[in-house]
Amino acid sequence: MKGSFITFEGCEGSGKSTQMRLLSERLKKEGISHIVTREPGGSDIAEQIRAIILNGKNTAMCDECEALLYAAARAQHLNEKVRPALDEGLLVLCDRFVDSSLAYQGYARGLGMDFVSSINSFALENYMPDLTLFLNISPKAAFERKHGADEGDRMEQLGLGFHEKVYEGYLKLADMYPGRIVKVECGGSKYDTADRIYSVLKSHKII
Amino acid sequence: MKGSFITFEGCEGSGKSTQMRLLSERLKKEGISHIVTREPGGSDIAEQIRAIILNGKNTAMCDECEALLYAAARAQHLNEKVRPALDEGLLVLCDRFVDSSLAYQGYARGLGMDFVSSINSFALENYMPDLTLFLNISPKAAFERKHGADEGDRMEQLGLGFHEKVYEGYLKLADMYPGRIVKVECGGSKYDTADRIYSVLKSHKII
Repeated sequence: MKGSFITFEGCEGSGKSTQMRLLSERLKKEGISHIVTREPGGSDIAEQIRAIILNGKNTAMCDECEALLYAAARAQHLNEKVRPALDEGLLVLCDRFVDSSLAYQGYARGLGMDFVSSINSFALENYMPDLTLFLNISPKAAFERKHGADEGDRMEQLGLGFHEKVYEGYLKLADMYPGRIVKVECGGSKYDTADRIYSVLKSHKII
Repeated sequence: MKGSFITFEGCEGSGKSTQMRLLSERLKKEGISHIVTREPGGSDIAEQIRAIILNGKNTAMCDECEALLYAAARAQHLNEKVRPALDEGLLVLCDRFVDSSLAYQGYARGLGMDFVSSINSFALENYMPDLTLFLNISPKAAFERKHGADEGDRMEQLGLGFHEKVYEGYLKLADMYPGRIVKVECGGSKYDTADRIYSVLKSHKII
């Protein structure tokens, strides 16, 4: 009995963490066993890699290095945390996964989605999410909601132009994988969005 | 006028560092401009990645993560240090490069040389060494010479059986790329080996 693997995707400030917390609270109330994790990171070694990737001082990092570090962290996280949990039959909620690499490094950085996909296929060992929730809010609105970027985070420091390309990348991915990626509209309150997410999980028979 | 790119390969304790130092001293005396660097590492960000790879406490690291980290460090090192030096026309001496990944991760870890090669082709951007010196000494003799493994180094901690597979991998690579990889026999004193290396550089018209 393999568990279900649900990933949350979206631009910086799109509300992924909040929505994951709200969903986790609701699942807990209903007694549904699950784990909450995140990328890059989610295990000790992967968090060490995260620290290098996001360190605001590492401005000299080249795009190829960045893409390979994300894939390395993903391989480790999958191996140490996601796969064992799925094998136990747990529901796994993960903040960012391979689509982030495709949108950020493949599309916005311009390395090409095919190439980033091929590096990641190595890291993934065919563990693709059963369902990916893309929180559909424009980067401008997301940034405003978040009151701007975190100065210590190398990825957030990239300007709005970059994050608009990331958003475009996500829209392309949603078109490419309509069966797996569901666009969740983020109008109304955070509780409205949470209800929409809950309905998607129900309609996809995840819960 | 592109410089020449020379890499040193071999098992732990094969004498790469000593031979690079001896060669560098001789080149200095002869007024030949060059830089000496190493992998994994060789630039600030790549050294941060090196620290994760070699940390003796990171025993939970999976093989895929390890291979991707080496490739990430290589991409960064190439981009920040090797390529600029070659573009300036310098001779670059590098302690380990892609053949280490092919022998260690591809062959000894069993990930496959083709797959490790494909990840690395992304990192390398076609910058292959002009000449690779493989210091041909059996892992057993090398370990004995070095008085055993460094307890703090995750790669050296792997037993002799692993390092014998690495050695086998190197021999295969030398057969696969006879034009690029030269086997340097390590009998006699370190100065005898240094003379052999110097002759190889002369006969390949590197110096």
